[in-house]
Amino acid sequence: MSACPQVDVALLHAPVVNRRGEVIGSAVTNLDLHDIARACRTFGVDTYWVVTPYARQRELSRQIISHWLDGHGKTANPDRGDALSLIRLRSELTEVLVETRQKWGPDVQVVATCADRASERMSYPYLRKRIFSGQPILLLFGTGWGLAPEVFTLVDATLSPILGSGGYNHLSVRSAVSIILDRVLGEYGDDIRK
Amino acid sequence: MSACPQVDVALLHAPVVNRRGEVIGSAVTNLDLHDIARACRTFGVDTYWVVTPYARQRELSRQIISHWLDGHGKTANPDRGDALSLIRLRSELTEVLVETRQKWGPDVQVVATCADRASERMSYPYLRKRIFSGQPILLLFGTGWGLAPEVFTLVDATLSPILGSGGYNHLSVRSAVSIILDRVLGEYGDDIRK
Repeated sequence: MSACPQVDVALLHAPVVNRRGEVIGSAVTNLDLHDIARACRTFGVDTYWVVTPYARQRELSRQIISHWLDGHGKTANPDRGDALSLIRLRSELTEVLVETRQKWGPDVQVVATCADRASERMSYPYLRKRIFSGQPILLLFGTGWGLAPEVFTLVDATLSPILGSGGYNHLSVRSAVSIILDRVLGEYGDDIRK
Repeated sequence: MSACPQVDVALLHAPVVNRRGEVIGSAVTNLDLHDIARACRTFGVDTYWVVTPYARQRELSRQIISHWLDGHGKTANPDRGDALSLIRLRSELTEVLVETRQKWGPDVQVVATCADRASERMSYPYLRKRIFSGQPILLLFGTGWGLAPEVFTLVDATLSPILGSGGYNHLSVRSAVSIILDRVLGEYGDDIRK
């Protein structure tokens, strides 16, 4: 349990599904940039990929990020720029797959997340062990009602859903990313998680 | 580890501190209502107390919640109302202390959260054990840069901060609530946390 973690997070705005299971593209939101960047920075994620096919959404995101990296936000709250500097905007997942493999080599493992229960899901302790034994990981999250079915054909594994005390499984993607990063990267519990 | 958890969450908008450590009141935000209610609902929290001294902020919050409980949101996305129904709006912490003690008896333990490291902080496994042995708990979170010093004079204990891989400790309150509820209430890891 000693290798330095190599973990990236990608937030997909397309292709994702809506409430009725239809494949859609969703809008980038300000707090998905901020909250997830802050969680990524806290837990040592290398790059936070924000993926949207819409050029104007990427431009809007670039302007938001620039406010905190170069604009008034830089002096008002430098910690925020520190987190948002992890973001890279891309138009589709395949670009992210190519770039993470350029960075970490061909055996980057792509792990999807999903709120539904199913068999053959990867457990959190297993993923944590893989990460700390030196396996580079790209973690995929979907906005809306989650990643579209076609995304799962591109991944190596899917993580178990986050289970609470009942059947309610409607966490925000911001909460899901935070909890999952804590489970697989958080310092807490190294003593009781190994 | 078998008692049914009795845990409430309170989000304080005053008294909290700003970036310079000054005691202020902060504004209620829509996503603090939604994200934290969804996390509370997922992990079996009984009541999510939203505390602000500003009557117009409570009224605005009431209107937002009402949209999802009674308005168009009820039919568009009933899961959201399911979560937001946990919210109770109050003007100050003392009201929450009185009401949680009316509900669960005089030995409700009030546990603050804080991003700073210090000695004498309660550990997560310890709090988890207390909860599952039947201790009723009120967990306090602060908006802005955290709970004001005077709040800590009213609490029984303060939880350890969430530690990531480095010194960056600027998670959003939405992320912090999600991670802390997962650590102390999440089903995951009962096998490796006990």
